[in-house]
This record gives sequence, C-alpha cells and structure tokens, in this order.
Amino acid sequence: MRALLLTSGGIDSVTLAYHLAEKQKLHGLVSFDYGQKHRKELDCARQCACRLGVPHDIINITDIGGHLTSALTNAGPEIPDGHYAEETMRSTVVPNRNAIMLSVAFGLAVAKGADAVAAAFHGGDHFIYPDCRPAFVDFFEHMERAALDGMADVKLHAPFLRRTKADIVREAARLKVPFADTWSCYKGGQTHCGRCGTCVERREAFHLAAIADPTSYDDPDYWMQAVAEHRIKGQ
Amino acid sequence: MRALLLTSGGIDSVTLAYHLAEKQKLHGLVSFDYGQKHRKELDCARQCACRLGVPHDIINITDIGGHLTSALTNAGPEIPDGHYAEETMRSTVVPNRNAIMLSVAFGLAVAKGADAVAAAFHGGDHFIYPDCRPAFVDFFEHMERAALDGMADVKLHAPFLRRTKADIVREAARLKVPFADTWSCYKGGQTHCGRCGTCVERREAFHLAAIADPTSYDDPDYWMQAVAEHRIKGQ
Repeated sequence: MRALLLTSGGIDSVTLAYHLAEKQKLHGLVSFDYGQKHRKELDCARQCACRLGVPHDIINITDIGGHLTSALTNAGPEIPDGHYAEETMRSTVVPNRNAIMLSVAFGLAVAKGADAVAAAFHGGDHFIYPDCRPAFVDFFEHMERAALDGMADVKLHAPFLRRTKADIVREAARLKVPFADTWSCYKGGQTHCGRCGTCVERREAFHLAAIADPTSYDDPDYWMQAVAEHRIKGQ
Repeated sequence: MRALLLTSGGIDSVTLAYHLAEKQKLHGLVSFDYGQKHRKELDCARQCACRLGVPHDIINITDIGGHLTSALTNAGPEIPDGHYAEETMRSTVVPNRNAIMLSVAFGLAVAKGADAVAAAFHGGDHFIYPDCRPAFVDFFEHMERAALDGMADVKLHAPFLRRTKADIVREAARLKVPFADTWSCYKGGQTHCGRCGTCVERREAFHLAAIADPTSYDDPDYWMQAVAEHRIKGQ
C-alpha cells in the first residue's frame, strides 16, 4: 500500500504520517486551504512532509468554504470554548467536510497512482461528528469502489478509527513525533488558546496518555474545568 | 422535496431544472467552475436559473481541477473526436469528478436547508463512466446518510438515471426548454464543434428522439460516421 494521507497538521494526522512512513506505506500528504482561521496547521503539515521526504499538495478550496457556513471559516462566528464532545462544537464544522475532502483526495490518488487514501479519524470524534464514524468510513469506501469501478482501485485506510486520541498520543511518543510542530487550536492565535474544543481535547489526551504535554497554552488549566463540566452533563 | 440541482448548462441538467420547476421541486442550481475549456456552459446554467427564477451558486474549484489530470481542464491534452461511449472518452474525465461535485452539493444543500440534491445522470452515461451508474448513486446516498446522520436528511434525486438521452430530449421538447441556451461541446469554440463526444451524443439524441436539432455545428455530419464506427466496434 502507498497511501495519500489527509493531513491537517494536527497531532492525529501527523502521527498517522509517521506511522505510515515507518511501514513504508506513505505516498504523500494532501491538505486543504479552506479559509480556516488556524493557518498554522498548514505550516505544520508542510513541515511534516519535508521531514518525512514526501510530496505535499495543498489544495485551495476557499470558495467551497465560502459557500458553506461554518465557524471554522474566516467569515464564520466565534469559536466556542468547551469540551470537544459538546453539542456546541457542531458549529465548528463545515457541512459534509469529510466527504468533500475525501472525494478530492480519492481523485488526487487516482491522478497520482496511489492505491489508498489514509485519514486519521479516531474514536473520540465519533460522539459529535457522524462523518468520522466507522459506518461513514465503510460506506465511503463502498461508494468509491462504485465510482472508480474499472478505472482504479483505491482503499480508504483509517487505522486509528477505533482508537482514542490518548492512544494516538502514545503512538506519537513512540514514533518521536515532534509535538511542537503539530497544531490543534481553532482560534488562529500565536499560541494554542487552551479553551477551544480541540485545545481541550489535545490537553486531555496528553493527560490520559500520561505523557508530558510540551505545548504552550494561553490558558493551560481551562481544560480541567471543561472536562469536569462535560462529565457532569453526561451523568 | 426542494432540490439543489447540479447544473452543467448542458441539455440533461437544464431539462432536469425545467422538469423539477414544473413540479415545484426546484430549490436552486449549483455549478462548478473547474477550469473547463467550455465556459459557455456556465453562462447557459446562469441563464437557466434566471429564467426559472431560482438562485444559482457557481463554486470555484479550479485549484482542484489543476491538481487532477484531465482533458477537460485548460492544462489538459486535446479533446478527442468520436462517439461518447468509446474508451477514449475516459480521458475527458476529471478523476472522481461526480463524487467531488456531489459532496460539495450535499454540503451546500445542508447550508441552504434544501432536502435533496438532484443530478441528471442518465442511461447513456453508464457505459463509460462508473460514477454515473445506479450502483454509484445508491452507494453515494447511503454514504451521505451516514455522513449527515442526526444533522440533516438530504436525498439524492436522479430521475433520469434509467432513461436515455433521447428520452431527455423528448422531455425537453415537451417542457419547451430553449435548446439554443444549452451547451454540450467540450472544445470551447464559438459554436458546437460537432466532433467531440458530447457533440456526437447530442446530435444522435435529437436524431433518435425524432426532434429537429436547432444547434449550429461546425461539422454537422461527423456524428453519423462516429455512430457507425462505434456500432461496428460493438459488433
């Protein structure tokens, strides 16, 4: 397998890049510029590709982003604070985002002769985002088999699908992923805010993995409050 | 049902626009600017939306087109002459094109509150293009049901899926679709070339429907030769 990896520049996808590179299964990286507030993630994806010595395509889909409503786009509302698994986090999603990015990645895989598209979906995403769940991944692969029937054979590879983000942090530590060159924060500041959904999720995952988090946060302690509030709501 | 219709500006999608408008099922049109040589089709789509009094989104995905190889893009090779159902016509396809456009259209449908995406796939497309076949349409709808689970319910409506292009021309005549304001040619000239796959298909469909073709072609008779050659190969 030689996989084209969807890479946001966050811990999950950068870790999957290192994981695939170790197995010599990494064809290249593909990232999307969709007008996100946090452009630092694209720099992190580029650094990852450079370090691993693979090609990196950044595809500009800002006009799609502009047509779809989202708190992630420049024109969108404020990014909410809180736990990643809260209902409010849905406002941070471009509708149908994963189907759009995967479809483009499958097209690029055909054009480049890669035989798989890899994505770092993981168990922690399942609560809120239906397009990160095993059912979606299965149906997407079936759909692509029909779409490319007789033209190409491209698999969808999602090895973290049933693992937690803490598992990914542990795998990252094993692979010596440079955490400082991964970016999670949705808010686009100079440092991670520590309050948005992905910052809280990142901080919590390091804690659960019992691995020191080298990230500098503007508000390093907020995550505990968000996790506590989320647990109380869940009871 | 209020459907957002994928509209290229060709006969098939413009006829479907009129067909849905007649039933008061048309929410709006969406078209894609992917760097195609035949930009006239976008003008035809715009005219169709104006005439039917519905909104029209043109989404710029030229950077995707630039990354994917295709004879349809400005940077691509020459457009081949011949019958639409010939193997050579595959070179005119952006890999995974329909999955990409449908995925974006589903995102836009969610953003706009439409409850269906409509597409003018028809039986004549099935020979060459796997991503126009009933199996693809079924899997795509299943995939989207999983992708949007709990967030939105958007159907994929393809009423011409098991009809021929000649059937569509007959339906267009019934609906009084202004044929002069539809565009099929891949080559981007001032008039239809009459030699590329879609021109041959268009000319043949009018012939089979026994309806006078008001289109002006640079080479109005080539289609008969292409059809005859295709039939001989098929024997």
